[in-house]
Amino acid sequence: MNHLRTEGFQNVTKVDDALRIFLGAIQWRAPKTESVNVAEALGRVLGEDIASHQFIPAEDRSVMDGYAVRSADIANASEEHPIALEVAGESRIGEVCRIVVKARQAVTVATGSMIPPEADAVVMVEITRILPDRKVVVYAPTTPDQNISKRGEDVSPGTLVLRKGQRLRAQDLAILRAMGFAKVRVVRRSRIGIISTGNELVNLPGKRDVGKVVDLNRQILSAMSEELGAQPMDLGIARDDESGIIRILRKALRSCDVILITAGSSVGRKDLVPECINRLGKPGMLVHGVAMRPSLPTGLAVVGGKPILSLPGFPVSAMIAFRVFGRPLIARLMGTGEPSEPVVKAVLKERISGPEGYRTFVRVMLRKTLDGLVAEPLKLQRASLLMSMVAANGIVTIPEHVEAFDAGQEVDVAVIGEIAS
Amino acid sequence: MNHLRTEGFQNVTKVDDALRIFLGAIQWRAPKTESVNVAEALGRVLGEDIASHQFIPAEDRSVMDGYAVRSADIANASEEHPIALEVAGESRIGEVCRIVVKARQAVTVATGSMIPPEADAVVMVEITRILPDRKVVVYAPTTPDQNISKRGEDVSPGTLVLRKGQRLRAQDLAILRAMGFAKVRVVRRSRIGIISTGNELVNLPGKRDVGKVVDLNRQILSAMSEELGAQPMDLGIARDDESGIIRILRKALRSCDVILITAGSSVGRKDLVPECINRLGKPGMLVHGVAMRPSLPTGLAVVGGKPILSLPGFPVSAMIAFRVFGRPLIARLMGTGEPSEPVVKAVLKERISGPEGYRTFVRVMLRKTLDGLVAEPLKLQRASLLMSMVAANGIVTIPEHVEAFDAGQEVDVAVIGEIAS
Repeated sequence: MNHLRTEGFQNVTKVDDALRIFLGAIQWRAPKTESVNVAEALGRVLGEDIASHQFIPAEDRSVMDGYAVRSADIANASEEHPIALEVAGESRIGEVCRIVVKARQAVTVATGSMIPPEADAVVMVEITRILPDRKVVVYAPTTPDQNISKRGEDVSPGTLVLRKGQRLRAQDLAILRAMGFAKVRVVRRSRIGIISTGNELVNLPGKRDVGKVVDLNRQILSAMSEELGAQPMDLGIARDDESGIIRILRKALRSCDVILITAGSSVGRKDLVPECINRLGKPGMLVHGVAMRPSLPTGLAVVGGKPILSLPGFPVSAMIAFRVFGRPLIARLMGTGEPSEPVVKAVLKERISGPEGYRTFVRVMLRKTLDGLVAEPLKLQRASLLMSMVAANGIVTIPEHVEAFDAGQEVDVAVIGEIAS
Repeated sequence: MNHLRTEGFQNVTKVDDALRIFLGAIQWRAPKTESVNVAEALGRVLGEDIASHQFIPAEDRSVMDGYAVRSADIANASEEHPIALEVAGESRIGEVCRIVVKARQAVTVATGSMIPPEADAVVMVEITRILPDRKVVVYAPTTPDQNISKRGEDVSPGTLVLRKGQRLRAQDLAILRAMGFAKVRVVRRSRIGIISTGNELVNLPGKRDVGKVVDLNRQILSAMSEELGAQPMDLGIARDDESGIIRILRKALRSCDVILITAGSSVGRKDLVPECINRLGKPGMLVHGVAMRPSLPTGLAVVGGKPILSLPGFPVSAMIAFRVFGRPLIARLMGTGEPSEPVVKAVLKERISGPEGYRTFVRVMLRKTLDGLVAEPLKLQRASLLMSMVAANGIVTIPEHVEAFDAGQEVDVAVIGEIAS
C-alpha cells in the first residue's frame, strides 16, 4: 500500500523538482526600492550598485605618529650613521598644512595628519630622537610613500564599492558615510501575508476553550519572515469555510508579495485551501505533496504571477517547509542571497534514517565534547511535537538517495540555536 | 629595535591574557530584566527559566485524518480479512467530542480532532473504505496510541521548556504562546556608550572641510552593538581635549553599561584617552597595547567596576578589536552566548603571514569554485583602508604560534559576508 507512505497524496513531488516548478511559474519583477537613512540601513538589501565619485582619503595622510620627510634625505640613515633634520613645523590633525618641506627638513605629524607639500614619506617616531634646537635625528631609512595613506588609496572615483543585492553590514554603512551618503536606496521589504486556517484555532488559550488550539503558525512565520528582512503582515485566522478563505486570499493577493497559508491542505480532511487557491486563478496549485519528512502536505501555488505557499498545520512542518521553500523564494524576490546559516560537522550519536526517495529533516541536539561536536537526534521527531524544534539546535538533512546515517558517522548539521558545552 | 614592531608600546599583552585580565576586573552583576510582549521578543535574551504549568496538547488529539477506534477491535484486520466498524459520529475539530466509542464502533476524526472517550487509536483514512449504512471497513491493524498525540506529550507541567540566557527564536516564541504567555521576561539590552575622539572628525563631509575626516566609528560600533542585541547610545565626537574627554566619559559611566571610545590612544600621539581614563578612577587602564594585527593600540580599562574599551581610530582596527573584546564582553554582560558566526574551511590562494607572537586577522574574499571554497587574501591589508573590510567576506586568524599559512593550505574562515560563486 504505497499510498500509506504518501498519506493519500496522488502525486508526491521531489523537493528539488517542486522548487524548480514553483520558482519557474512566478512572474519575477525587479525588486522595488526605497530610500532610507544610512544609519537605519543595517541588514537591508542594497537596491543599486554604488560607485564612488570621491577620493578616500581625500588627501595624503600619515598612518603613523612621526615626521614627514623627503625620503631621499635619509636614504643612508642607520643606527651607526643617524641623519639629523630640521623640524620646520607641525601638521595638525584636522587642519590643512601649508608648510613646504625643503631638503633636510621634517614636519611633525600624527596618525591622520595631512602630509605637507614636498614630503614623500613618514618616519615613525620610534626610529627618531628629538634634539634641542628643533632638530630630529633619524636612525633608519625610509622608502617613498612609506607610512602614507595616499589620496584615493582606499576608494577612488569610479571604484565599484558596493553591489546591488548585498545585505548592508556595519562596514558598508561606514563606507557610505565616508562617501558622503546620508541616504541609500535599498530594496523594499517583501510583504509576506500570513494566514492560518482552522475552526480549532484561537489566539491565546482561554479557560473555556476546551478542544481549541492556540494558533502558533502566524507567530512562527512572522518571526521567520522578519529574520529574512521581509515584512510580515498578519492576516489573521480563517475559519474552515470556502468563501471566507477565498475572501482573505483575494485580499492578500492585492496587498502582499507572498502568501503563506497554513493547514487545510491534508488530502483526507477537506483539501479546502488547495481548492480555494485553484478557484482564485491560474495556474493555481502546481505542487501538492512534497517528498519530504516532515512537511509532506506542502502545497506550492502561483496565482496571477504571485507565489502562495500552502504550508502544513503542525508548526514544526510549517517551519521546515518554510525553510525549504520560503527562504529561497523571498531571497530571490528581494534580489539577494539567502542569509548564511552556520553549518558544522558533528558525529552522530545514534543512527537516523528516512523513507527512500524522501528528504528527511532530523532535529538534533548539538553538544561540544572533548572529542568534538556530537549530534544527538531528539527522541521525539513527530511533526506534532513543537518541542522537537524548541529543544533542537541543529538539523541534519538525509538526502533522498541515502537510506540512513549510522551512529558514529560524521554529518553536516545546520545550526539553528546556541551550542552548549 | 623591538619597539618598532610594538609601535612604541611598553607592554604588549597577548590577546588571551588581555581578555582574561579585562573580564576578571569587571564587577559582574546579574543582568537586569524587563517584561516584553512575546510577539516582540525575537532575538532577545531570555531572563528566566521557563517551566510549563500546562499540558500541551491539552487533550489527546488525532495526528491523522481517519477514524478513532478501539485498537483491540481491529487487531486482526488485514487486506484479506478487513474488519467493518460502525461509524458512531464525528469528532469535529475545535469542538469537544462526547461520543463514547463502544466495541466495534469508530468515530470520524481529522488531524487535530479530540479523541473521543474509550477510543485508543486512530486508523488512517487511507487504510479504510467507507461503506453505505454508516459502516467503515479497516484493512490493517493498529496499535494502542497509534496516530494519537497524547495529552502532555509535547509539554507537561514541570517540563523545563526554555533556559535563562538563550536567545529567543521563532519556535521559542511559539511555545511561549502555546503555554499561554502574552509577555515574557527578557534581559534588558546592555547600554553601549559610543564616543569618538579627534579634532579632525566631522559627522558628514562638507565642501569646506579640507583636512577633516568623516567619523565612521560611531556608525560601525552602533551597528555592531545592535547585531549583538545591545542598545547603542551615540555620545558624539569629543575634541582632543582632556577636560572634554573626561566630562563625556563621566557622563557615559553614569548612563551606560559599557563604554567604547575610539582613537586618542596611540603612544606617540598624546595618549590622551588612556590618561583621561586613569584619572577617572581605579583600576583604570589594565591593558594598553595588545599583541594583535591590526588593532595593536587597543586599551582595556575598568573604572568603578564598569568596562571601557579604548579602541584604535582606524575603523578596521576598531572593528577587529570590537570582535575580539567587545563581543565576549557584551555576551557575558547579557548572560548569554556569543551569536554563532558561520566558520567554513577554505583553501588559501596565497601565503599569509603575521608577526610571531601576534594574533593576525587577515581579511579574505571567499569564492565558491568547482574545487570548493577558495580564500583569496585581499591585496591591501592596511588598517587605514576600510575597503579591506568592505570587500572582504571572510577573516582568517593566524594564531600567535603560527608564522604563516601557505598557499594551498586549508584554513578556517569566519564568514562575515555573502559568498558569491
